[in-house]
Amino acid sequence: MAREALIKDFEAMLGKENVFSSEADRRTYAYDAAVLNPVVPAFVLRPTTTEQLGQCVVKLYNEGVPMTVRGAGTNLSGGTIPDTSDTVVILTCALNRILEINTNDLYAVVEPGVVTADLAAAVAAKGLFYPPDPGSMSVSSIGGNIAENAGGLRGLKYGVTKDYVMGVEFFDATGGWVRSGSRTVKCVTGYNLAGMFIQSEGTLGVLSQAVLKLVPPPRASKACLAEFDDLQKAAEAVAGIIAEHILPCTLEFLDNNTIVKVDDFTHIGLPRNAAAILLIEVDGHPAQVADDAEAVERVLKACGATAVHVARDAAEKTKLWEARRQALPVLARVKPTTVLEDATVPRSQIPAMMKAITEISKKYRVDVGTFGHAGDGNLHPTFLCDKRDKEEYARVEAAIDEMFDTAIKLQGTLSGEHGIGTAKAKWMEKETSRGTILFSRRLRKALDPKGLLNPTKLVGIMGGE
Amino acid sequence: MAREALIKDFEAMLGKENVFSSEADRRTYAYDAAVLNPVVPAFVLRPTTTEQLGQCVVKLYNEGVPMTVRGAGTNLSGGTIPDTSDTVVILTCALNRILEINTNDLYAVVEPGVVTADLAAAVAAKGLFYPPDPGSMSVSSIGGNIAENAGGLRGLKYGVTKDYVMGVEFFDATGGWVRSGSRTVKCVTGYNLAGMFIQSEGTLGVLSQAVLKLVPPPRASKACLAEFDDLQKAAEAVAGIIAEHILPCTLEFLDNNTIVKVDDFTHIGLPRNAAAILLIEVDGHPAQVADDAEAVERVLKACGATAVHVARDAAEKTKLWEARRQALPVLARVKPTTVLEDATVPRSQIPAMMKAITEISKKYRVDVGTFGHAGDGNLHPTFLCDKRDKEEYARVEAAIDEMFDTAIKLQGTLSGEHGIGTAKAKWMEKETSRGTILFSRRLRKALDPKGLLNPTKLVGIMGGE
Repeated sequence: MAREALIKDFEAMLGKENVFSSEADRRTYAYDAAVLNPVVPAFVLRPTTTEQLGQCVVKLYNEGVPMTVRGAGTNLSGGTIPDTSDTVVILTCALNRILEINTNDLYAVVEPGVVTADLAAAVAAKGLFYPPDPGSMSVSSIGGNIAENAGGLRGLKYGVTKDYVMGVEFFDATGGWVRSGSRTVKCVTGYNLAGMFIQSEGTLGVLSQAVLKLVPPPRASKACLAEFDDLQKAAEAVAGIIAEHILPCTLEFLDNNTIVKVDDFTHIGLPRNAAAILLIEVDGHPAQVADDAEAVERVLKACGATAVHVARDAAEKTKLWEARRQALPVLARVKPTTVLEDATVPRSQIPAMMKAITEISKKYRVDVGTFGHAGDGNLHPTFLCDKRDKEEYARVEAAIDEMFDTAIKLQGTLSGEHGIGTAKAKWMEKETSRGTILFSRRLRKALDPKGLLNPTKLVGIMGGE
Repeated sequence: MAREALIKDFEAMLGKENVFSSEADRRTYAYDAAVLNPVVPAFVLRPTTTEQLGQCVVKLYNEGVPMTVRGAGTNLSGGTIPDTSDTVVILTCALNRILEINTNDLYAVVEPGVVTADLAAAVAAKGLFYPPDPGSMSVSSIGGNIAENAGGLRGLKYGVTKDYVMGVEFFDATGGWVRSGSRTVKCVTGYNLAGMFIQSEGTLGVLSQAVLKLVPPPRASKACLAEFDDLQKAAEAVAGIIAEHILPCTLEFLDNNTIVKVDDFTHIGLPRNAAAILLIEVDGHPAQVADDAEAVERVLKACGATAVHVARDAAEKTKLWEARRQALPVLARVKPTTVLEDATVPRSQIPAMMKAITEISKKYRVDVGTFGHAGDGNLHPTFLCDKRDKEEYARVEAAIDEMFDTAIKLQGTLSGEHGIGTAKAKWMEKETSRGTILFSRRLRKALDPKGLLNPTKLVGIMGGE
């Protein structure tokens, strides 16, 4: 069917106000937060009900049109960039109802377009807690969080998005309606399709609903900031805390480059001369919080912290976390291009990884600010550059290559929480195996025989085996 | 290739001592713990290294021979019963090495044949904790736990097997070597094949290695037994505890039928006149344990418990759990056939489910002892009967049918932790959807094109779409 006729059909199906085909509109959905070239889609659909969502998938499948589903577009690996100029973007932002918050059975049922922070707030208002907190949570939505298995600051103690998905409902590429998982903690009815759907980056189906696990909130918490005059000592303190079997809810790291830039911008009063700081929060029962906080302070000092500042009240705690939250926005202002990476290593390998990042940045003469979720080994070395400067950008790419090699050598992973998308596909086989790629492609081809769902993402579908 | 020639080849590959083909040996591997007819396999292989395991898969695939992988054979849904008399059983019991227990990074790397309790003990000896504790853990092995996503008594607070699998390595049906997941808490490199492999009941590949998450052990715990003169009151107390946002590590239920039979056999001194008892353990920081235990006792009394006995020491606690652990073995002695079910409902629906089970057992005049993991809604109504009595067994089957209908009506699931196998395949579509079955079959066919891995289990492979 010609594009114009297709648009007319969708306008009849969804209403004119939910079909975007002007050039300005199309350009709006041509990119996401990854450093990749934009691709302008054919047009954009905004279904407002589950039924409409299913109808869109069926129609696009029948017409053989590629689809990219888009939540808030905060993706850092290109997962929401259209594959081709024929691609139709399906927006989930109008499917944003929280259908149920069950305080007795500790779950929520939501549509994919619910904003993560809105869910967290609604759940908190009912006295419960939804822990996953990706950095973009104030705008990111649950569908994207599930498609990418979003992480966040609380991964160390509370896990990531996949640890909170009890069940999903989705339309497969052909429009078939699939249901997996349950409102129960235990459910082994059939394949763990919910588990398979998580992290599939929009390639195995289009999410229509999710059941998310909730937990009772911690009763108390305590946060502190530790200063170090040596990067290695900070890295060793992280490993030391975990080795003591304390699981802080958050254990974040900022290097000097990041500290100075955050302080320049926020004037929070960070220790500008520190080689690194750790921001640590423990939570739980008040007595446990007191014990853990004491133990953390002991380890920090034993590992050579030059100062430990404990937040005395909620306001001070908020200020500490403000420093961390500003890290990326502040680094992103320095240069035109910000490449935010998420290579991740087992926690005890943080000292080795930090050492390698420092050496690599020197070797390739690149400006790197490193911060991140040190507690779960998930660092964010952030490369500040200008992509238009081809010579510099080639050095950045070489540095990233070497950094991934190092992460894999240290038994870590290419991507802790940002996904593969198109940005990291070429490195996948190095971490996994040829067999893994072939297995994944067979799986994908069977479930999306026409290759229409985000076809160039992840392991690719082109060429099959 | 003729069976005799094939056996000779495998003897050369694995050594004569690792190929079992006598009738007595073959009959030994014809059944598992499910109430289903045995199927005697062609022969049985016991590879002793990962390489041998892979070679077995490749050879059987090339020869077009169906395979059933078998751990300890404790399966309750027929997952380890050979599909046909041509099936070759692959034993994992000789692949039983714990390859690493990493106390800094909190994980263990194991082969599939490691016995669950052996792992738990080895981990405890290093000061850590592997929580999943299926009832059969003293004999069951990790490969089977992963294939079935085994649950256990600690599901309510600690989750189930899938919550502890960080990574897997497996041979796919064609012998391809697949790797998914990592030694890191966060890993989003490629599809979540580890999540998909869990609960796939031996149909998607043959596990060679798993990385399992470990946690720091709780510092304290406290257990109690509560008596009720009314089944409904006990069920309401379960819902009441969760609604208070207390997550006991274990919250178990025994009905009068089970209590009397356990006491007859063990002479533990259980309250034989109680309509039901709850066995509850809370764990964590000592101060939290004290608070939670007090709150639990308050809820129990408010819900009408006629007595609450708190275990004063480790010996008393052991005695309480002995009562629970004996439930199944004792019920299994009553009649020749024991059908152990695991229909599961959201926790707040336990009162409704218990009421339904009582009514169903009366309606069909069947002897049911109900016990189980009440805290996560996972009850084990256990039907005591004699399968040879066709009239009685037909009533048992009708009762089970109605029980599953009730569980689904209450937004629960057919199977909380025992799997689908061949025993429950016919009910699957009722809980999920036609689309789910078709999607699962497409997936399976693509990954096991010859239909050789446990072909009749789960959604079946015969007939394709």
